[in-house]
Amino acid sequence: MAFTVRWKKDMLFEGETPDGNKALMDTSKEHGGSNSAATPMQLVLLALGGCTGMDVIAILKKMKDLPEEFFMEIDAERAEDHPKIYKKTTIRYVFRGNLKEENVKKAIELSQNKYCSVSAILKGVGEVNYTYEIRR
Amino acid sequence: MAFTVRWKKDMLFEGETPDGNKALMDTSKEHGGSNSAATPMQLVLLALGGCTGMDVIAILKKMKDLPEEFFMEIDAERAEDHPKIYKKTTIRYVFRGNLKEENVKKAIELSQNKYCSVSAILKGVGEVNYTYEIRR
Repeated sequence: MAFTVRWKKDMLFEGETPDGNKALMDTSKEHGGSNSAATPMQLVLLALGGCTGMDVIAILKKMKDLPEEFFMEIDAERAEDHPKIYKKTTIRYVFRGNLKEENVKKAIELSQNKYCSVSAILKGVGEVNYTYEIRR
Repeated sequence: MAFTVRWKKDMLFEGETPDGNKALMDTSKEHGGSNSAATPMQLVLLALGGCTGMDVIAILKKMKDLPEEFFMEIDAERAEDHPKIYKKTTIRYVFRGNLKEENVKKAIELSQNKYCSVSAILKGVGEVNYTYEIRR
């Protein structure tokens, strides 16, 4: 079963997964869109966060050391020339809770070095770096 | 300004772009989620369609040769071993309308060989192939 991405109007596209989950994509007014949804390249960065975030939560859950709160801040620098890939991406992992630092460190390392497919894809064309912070 | 990806519960994450557009990500029940939204890796394939689709529409618009309808079907094969990148991705571009085939061909080629950043990123680790069809 295939994924479908359908042109709706202007620069608005609707993607649909084989099991019917949907995501809209649009672009800025400057590029003919309405800025009503994330752009495709923005979606790739959000996917990077979701991918490594799910790994980290799954690993911390196995360690019985889940945070009370967890989010990531992601920044990326694009190449100047077309096709303007992400040449340098930085993820800042922020946790709140009474977590063991060694668990957090191990969970992030396992995701970044072994499991996270989106990160591995981005590393094919650029750098992916990270930092982490545990707020008590 | 950074992108934020926040853990909501279980395997549900919410991504937010710097200008406030949001996208949810989840995973299958088998992996601890609720299948309430596309997975991060699924989102990458939808982003691929959005990216090349926007290029193609922008180019056809400049050529004053827009379709009445346009969608893409995307299939991808993942590597068997972690980090399970997309090793082979195929996009089927489907147009309806009285379009000139040479315009369609040129628009897709420009996207795939020059402009589409998501395609260029996927080509860093695997193949991206395509076919197209014009329905009159």
